[in-house]
Amino acid sequence: MKNVYLFDEGSADMRDLLGGKGANLAEMTNIGLPVPPGFTVTTDVCREYMRLNRMPERLMDEVRAKLQVVEQRTGKTFGDPQNPLLVSVRSGAKFSMPGMMDTILNLGLNDETAEGMIRLTNNPRFVYDAYRRLIMMFCDVVLDIPKRGFEERFEALKHGLGVEQDTDVPADALFELIGVFKSYAREQGAEFPMDPREQLAMAIEAVFRSWNNERANVYREREKIPHDLGTACNVQSMVFGNLGDDSGTGVAFTRDPSTGEKVIYGEFLVNAQGEDVVAGIRTPLHLSELKPMMPAIYDEFLQIADRLELHYRDMMDLEFTIERGRLYMLQCRVGKRTGRAAVKIAVDRANEGLISREEAVLGVNPVQLDQLLHRQIDPNAISTGDYPELAQGLGASPGAASGHAVFTAARAVELATEKPVILVRPETNPDDVKGMLASKGILTARGGMTSHAAVVARGFGIPCVAGCEAISVDDERRLFYAGNQTIREGDAITIDGATGKVFLGTVPTIEPELSNELNVLLTWADEFRRLRVRANADNPEDSEKAIEFGAEGIGLCRTEHMFFGDRLPIMQEMILASDESGRRAALAKLLPFQREDFIGIFEVMSGKPVTIRLIDPPLHEFLPDHETLLREVIMLEVANSDSPALIEKRRLLKRVEDLRESNPMLGMRGVRLSIRFPEIVEMQTTAIIEAAIEVKRRGKEPIVEIMIPLVGHVNELKIVRDYLESVAQDVMAKAGVKVDYSFGTMIEIPRAALTADEIAEHCEFFSFGTNDLTQTTFGFSRDDAEGKFLDIYVQEKILPENPFVSLDRNGVGRLVKMAAEYGRRIRRHIKLGICGEHGGDPASVEFCHEVGLDYVSCSPYRVPLARLAAAQAALRYRVSVSEDK
Amino acid sequence: MKNVYLFDEGSADMRDLLGGKGANLAEMTNIGLPVPPGFTVTTDVCREYMRLNRMPERLMDEVRAKLQVVEQRTGKTFGDPQNPLLVSVRSGAKFSMPGMMDTILNLGLNDETAEGMIRLTNNPRFVYDAYRRLIMMFCDVVLDIPKRGFEERFEALKHGLGVEQDTDVPADALFELIGVFKSYAREQGAEFPMDPREQLAMAIEAVFRSWNNERANVYREREKIPHDLGTACNVQSMVFGNLGDDSGTGVAFTRDPSTGEKVIYGEFLVNAQGEDVVAGIRTPLHLSELKPMMPAIYDEFLQIADRLELHYRDMMDLEFTIERGRLYMLQCRVGKRTGRAAVKIAVDRANEGLISREEAVLGVNPVQLDQLLHRQIDPNAISTGDYPELAQGLGASPGAASGHAVFTAARAVELATEKPVILVRPETNPDDVKGMLASKGILTARGGMTSHAAVVARGFGIPCVAGCEAISVDDERRLFYAGNQTIREGDAITIDGATGKVFLGTVPTIEPELSNELNVLLTWADEFRRLRVRANADNPEDSEKAIEFGAEGIGLCRTEHMFFGDRLPIMQEMILASDESGRRAALAKLLPFQREDFIGIFEVMSGKPVTIRLIDPPLHEFLPDHETLLREVIMLEVANSDSPALIEKRRLLKRVEDLRESNPMLGMRGVRLSIRFPEIVEMQTTAIIEAAIEVKRRGKEPIVEIMIPLVGHVNELKIVRDYLESVAQDVMAKAGVKVDYSFGTMIEIPRAALTADEIAEHCEFFSFGTNDLTQTTFGFSRDDAEGKFLDIYVQEKILPENPFVSLDRNGVGRLVKMAAEYGRRIRRHIKLGICGEHGGDPASVEFCHEVGLDYVSCSPYRVPLARLAAAQAALRYRVSVSEDK
Repeated sequence: MKNVYLFDEGSADMRDLLGGKGANLAEMTNIGLPVPPGFTVTTDVCREYMRLNRMPERLMDEVRAKLQVVEQRTGKTFGDPQNPLLVSVRSGAKFSMPGMMDTILNLGLNDETAEGMIRLTNNPRFVYDAYRRLIMMFCDVVLDIPKRGFEERFEALKHGLGVEQDTDVPADALFELIGVFKSYAREQGAEFPMDPREQLAMAIEAVFRSWNNERANVYREREKIPHDLGTACNVQSMVFGNLGDDSGTGVAFTRDPSTGEKVIYGEFLVNAQGEDVVAGIRTPLHLSELKPMMPAIYDEFLQIADRLELHYRDMMDLEFTIERGRLYMLQCRVGKRTGRAAVKIAVDRANEGLISREEAVLGVNPVQLDQLLHRQIDPNAISTGDYPELAQGLGASPGAASGHAVFTAARAVELATEKPVILVRPETNPDDVKGMLASKGILTARGGMTSHAAVVARGFGIPCVAGCEAISVDDERRLFYAGNQTIREGDAITIDGATGKVFLGTVPTIEPELSNELNVLLTWADEFRRLRVRANADNPEDSEKAIEFGAEGIGLCRTEHMFFGDRLPIMQEMILASDESGRRAALAKLLPFQREDFIGIFEVMSGKPVTIRLIDPPLHEFLPDHETLLREVIMLEVANSDSPALIEKRRLLKRVEDLRESNPMLGMRGVRLSIRFPEIVEMQTTAIIEAAIEVKRRGKEPIVEIMIPLVGHVNELKIVRDYLESVAQDVMAKAGVKVDYSFGTMIEIPRAALTADEIAEHCEFFSFGTNDLTQTTFGFSRDDAEGKFLDIYVQEKILPENPFVSLDRNGVGRLVKMAAEYGRRIRRHIKLGICGEHGGDPASVEFCHEVGLDYVSCSPYRVPLARLAAAQAALRYRVSVSEDK
Repeated sequence: MKNVYLFDEGSADMRDLLGGKGANLAEMTNIGLPVPPGFTVTTDVCREYMRLNRMPERLMDEVRAKLQVVEQRTGKTFGDPQNPLLVSVRSGAKFSMPGMMDTILNLGLNDETAEGMIRLTNNPRFVYDAYRRLIMMFCDVVLDIPKRGFEERFEALKHGLGVEQDTDVPADALFELIGVFKSYAREQGAEFPMDPREQLAMAIEAVFRSWNNERANVYREREKIPHDLGTACNVQSMVFGNLGDDSGTGVAFTRDPSTGEKVIYGEFLVNAQGEDVVAGIRTPLHLSELKPMMPAIYDEFLQIADRLELHYRDMMDLEFTIERGRLYMLQCRVGKRTGRAAVKIAVDRANEGLISREEAVLGVNPVQLDQLLHRQIDPNAISTGDYPELAQGLGASPGAASGHAVFTAARAVELATEKPVILVRPETNPDDVKGMLASKGILTARGGMTSHAAVVARGFGIPCVAGCEAISVDDERRLFYAGNQTIREGDAITIDGATGKVFLGTVPTIEPELSNELNVLLTWADEFRRLRVRANADNPEDSEKAIEFGAEGIGLCRTEHMFFGDRLPIMQEMILASDESGRRAALAKLLPFQREDFIGIFEVMSGKPVTIRLIDPPLHEFLPDHETLLREVIMLEVANSDSPALIEKRRLLKRVEDLRESNPMLGMRGVRLSIRFPEIVEMQTTAIIEAAIEVKRRGKEPIVEIMIPLVGHVNELKIVRDYLESVAQDVMAKAGVKVDYSFGTMIEIPRAALTADEIAEHCEFFSFGTNDLTQTTFGFSRDDAEGKFLDIYVQEKILPENPFVSLDRNGVGRLVKMAAEYGRRIRRHIKLGICGEHGGDPASVEFCHEVGLDYVSCSPYRVPLARLAAAQAALRYRVSVSEDK
């Protein structure tokens, strides 16, 4: 087996084996670009290393053989004091992990070769500088002696000399520093090896070892890169950008990575090593300034950049070094870019005829669109300085929101009826949900991206800044501190859930809009996708937003949201009524409200389907919190055992206790509620059908889909559907107008999926509620799992990812697939969709495409993302199917 | 299609079509027994009636044709005043439903035929009595005018005459009563029809209608009889047991239905109609007393009884009437019996060579064994004199029960949710069934061993004392008198359904033991069954009980039970510890306790497998209740804001709140706990292995199976298993002794079943936790569902039965089957079992046999039941497989 490849033995399509960097160095070499000679040790070796926990035998023999070729090509010899070859050793995995793994430069220097180099270059300062860098990097990366100790010693030296810049330190001082570094390493129990071959063997091993360091692991977690890929290791002859003013080093993008504009965008430093640009120690110059300085080099570079963009069919990220007036390419890779740039580049390049529309659609990561589609802080407002930035936390749920600070969920509910509020909490828990829903935004001092606050906020599309440790919340005194500022209840603040920033005052915001390029890209996407995309929307405003973003219907309209706000007292009256007639009296008051809601939604969605879910949550969610009430009752009891207030509170507490459940998630909700209190869904159905009739009268075209939640046994569906059919028929008979409607059910508990054949006989559509289905299939309560054990599970790789974020294919997915098959077996054209957070997750959208669902539904702001993801799934599936043939 | 069958056109194997009663009347007719001629309208007609909601056309033509044959055979003519034929009309479904549906006697009487009958019999009293009974029954059953109005009028008449017994009312008064009854019916808006053919048509329809009355529905629910079978309707020429002292009527069992002894057991009344015996209005005579009164009839009856037992190969329940010295058989069916009798009869009959051992094993309903394994009154408790004996009645259904006295069925249903109740009634009727089922025991003042109360109680295995004439029940004032004592609603009483004794207070009871016959039957069962039977036991005592009842191992040893009692403070110390070392210190104290527990269990179970489940429940279950604690803290806060007690309580409250979960069922428990706090299961594994080593040293043979609960993803299992394997190896290395052990997992959440192939790679056995699996598959929290919506679901037939009692085949069963298949595909000999309540339910045991599990595990007391059910499943499956061939 071949473990080591010279650059001219590889190619760009060997990324698996050579890593991205190695494959691209090979590709550039083969198309004739000026690449310093070198070779790549394969990822196979890394995997072997991880298995053996030591380097494979005889590997170094192979390395030495390739090194000899490099020696021939460069005319230098590794370790030869007369004409020493120096090399760099760098990691390079299949997927780019910038700065995540380790690099060592100038390998091959020792006391003897350093002197040889000085004889050749006549530049002792340069050589000693390279040597001291090597010792520091080597000790840090290979010998595990942190850089800091070396840096401190260098700082001390500079202080003693009275100089500021590294470049001002003279050669003899650097020579002295080399001695200091070597003895410091010795003090730390290690010895910098003088034998270049030993240096090389140790460095290669260190690169492989670095695959499993913490930074790399964290990065892979975030980027969803499998942990078992391993990295390759690239050994390349050194070129130096720090050999004087005719030398330099830089990085460039073939287009602007921020805006996507078609201008080369780069930075460089004269007389510097490559690491200096990346590290940001000296402020680099704009690439255009190279033109007057080295016009020939500049032109050569532009030509290379053009050629590479054409060759790779994408915007590229390049690294180069100029050594004594000669240009060398050290790296090229597909360039990272902002969402905005990604869209523009893809559309521009397709329009330029450089790539196809399919490639343009496949070339934008849907997740990047998220940045573009939420209400944003107006940058002009910030630049006025009128809105001081208070703190920065994690951008946990994108979007900007302003409101008055409140410090408890109860107070949020109370004040929200009067004015917008931002709920500020140390952290949130399930008891706070009511208050969270009532708020325009949420700010917490503790908790990460999967904390309760973050998850709930994202689920409901409420902007959220989480884990803002720069603030200190005192909820008892109703205030928080940020720096030397104190913000009290009622003070206006603004949060930016995208950037995590918190501002004082009500910062003007701007509505997101689809840019022209994005619109074009999505129109192309629409041509390729098979999956339809709907939105979750509970009111006319959200419905409008959904249409604007391209939704083809509403996949989930949650009716219970219509029972909060000023309707809450009527809802509570209904719940507290002692008998059915009392409940009916309250429901009669709610009917006109619900009807108006539906009229508004049907008008906006005319001609498009609207799936309305009947009441779902347990009734206690509409009543005051149990613990608060209990406290009040006890306090009243202590004060006066007979007050009328106490009697009233006790009555309320009694009812709350009647409704309380050990496991509300698995309790009296969904269709169970409809069976116990059919009058509630009777009212809802009446409101839906009356609204449809009214909208039809107005000349619009309502398409009504009534959805019964939480069905587990076909009989639940049958009973409720039969009853509501008769209600609908009565309403239509009374009005003398017929409207089309259909009935369907959520498939959100395992038994529904397992018996989907029976269920399909009695409904026209299924909507997979994969959030609840994930909870029951895993036996995870989301409220409890996240923040308690789920984080640990994801961190420790017990689960490949959070199944609430990305649909679990092996378990939950198996049920979805089964239900889709069973359903279609009985009712060939049953409509199948998914609603909930997974509908806005690209991997989950791809799964929905694969199992042949008809649509996905997600929050309006995620509709563009879902459109793109659906198109990509269709294109990829087409590719993978044709590959199978 | 033939809708009506003469008795001689049918046979015993036509139960589906003719119902049980009709098929048996046909069979008796065909073997030459004296059965009054008649015919049966088929169950097909009933189903047709239910579909059409009216009687099928032309049915009555067919009825009239068969009626003509009956007229020929009896020499009488229906509706002919000269020689009128009278008939009875009775329901008769495939499965016996005693007293559940309606019957009308003496049909064919009207003003004219009544006079004709008088001319023939010269007995106006008898004829008018029959006529008034017909009117009353017909009005009640057909015209929906409740009996009560007629009874009141009869009572008023008797009062006016100054007589007590019905038999003392003279003919002319009865004639007058007939007029009163007819005008009462007219007042109620109905007319008793004079046309006998109209009477017959209406009566047949009423029988079919009665299939769907409430009593019948409740009965079918409980007995699991499908609702769509329908009943047949039997029309039979009347014979009269009330034509004087040479007439009579009675019921008998071919063996004692209570003890199973081989003696004919029956009761009769002279000069009475059949309904009088069943209704329990007059207390009947023992059958043996018939011998001196009518020796020839007695002998004839004994011969018939013997012949029927031989013919039907089972103990039979017979009804007969003697009309003027002539014996008629009116009904025969397989006799209901107590569990004790069922076992004895089956074993005796097999030993007598009348049936095979297979038939004996199949002939006992496993549920009936439950009665035998119920607790009995502790004789030592009685001898203390602390529990006065109140009265003695008939031991009508064995078993001892204590509870609070209640006096109406409705009240029984109401109170039974809070506490055990004993239903005390003068006598019972079918309307009381729901209340009877809700009670722990039944006590009646009137009625014999075949009274309604006795039959129903035996059928359902509820202890019952009937005919306790020593007490006087006043159900309006909610009390009963016994001697000079008054027992009111809510007072505790105890009944002994074996001896018929009634005690004041809650008398202690003792453990049951296996009778010789039961031991024999179970030994036979063991030969036939394939499924192994284990017991759930958490301590040496239960393990001993399990062995005694025939358990072949322990299928579930719940270790957390070992953390309560005097160990609870240490457990709490562990939970409240602030770090791992604190937890380890507490665990070190628990270790010796757990080791001792395991030593005890392994010793008892030597040579048999013991499955030990590692800690499962959430930790907050070991801490004080949140609400109680909260109350205490608030009270302390009000009293003194700074007391040390308050600080301590607050600390505890804080920890309880940390551990509290919104849905503990889906939270931090099972393997999740093991991953978070591996030190707990490390201690448990150490205790298990050390105990096994110690027991092995003592010369016994421990077979250890360590079970990891609540696995949902294979990685959970892998991590915990790998860790515990190393713990086990360490313990064994330290002791220098090796013991065998294996690891397995519970399959109790859907994802485990869906990915059982992945999971099987890492464990040696699966134990299906079907209680939790039912909760998650249905999305039902058992704590919340039962008592809230599940009862409604079962009552209203939304679910065919409570899935926690009998395993849901379509949903949960599908997962179990899938997991068993997946598991075996990967690991051919993986051991598969089920633990939990379903392991003791016969239908669920049959399911486990069908899907090929290796064992079921249930409470020690249900082990005999499971052994029998497993054998029956094997025998039935053998039969059904060979039938398929």
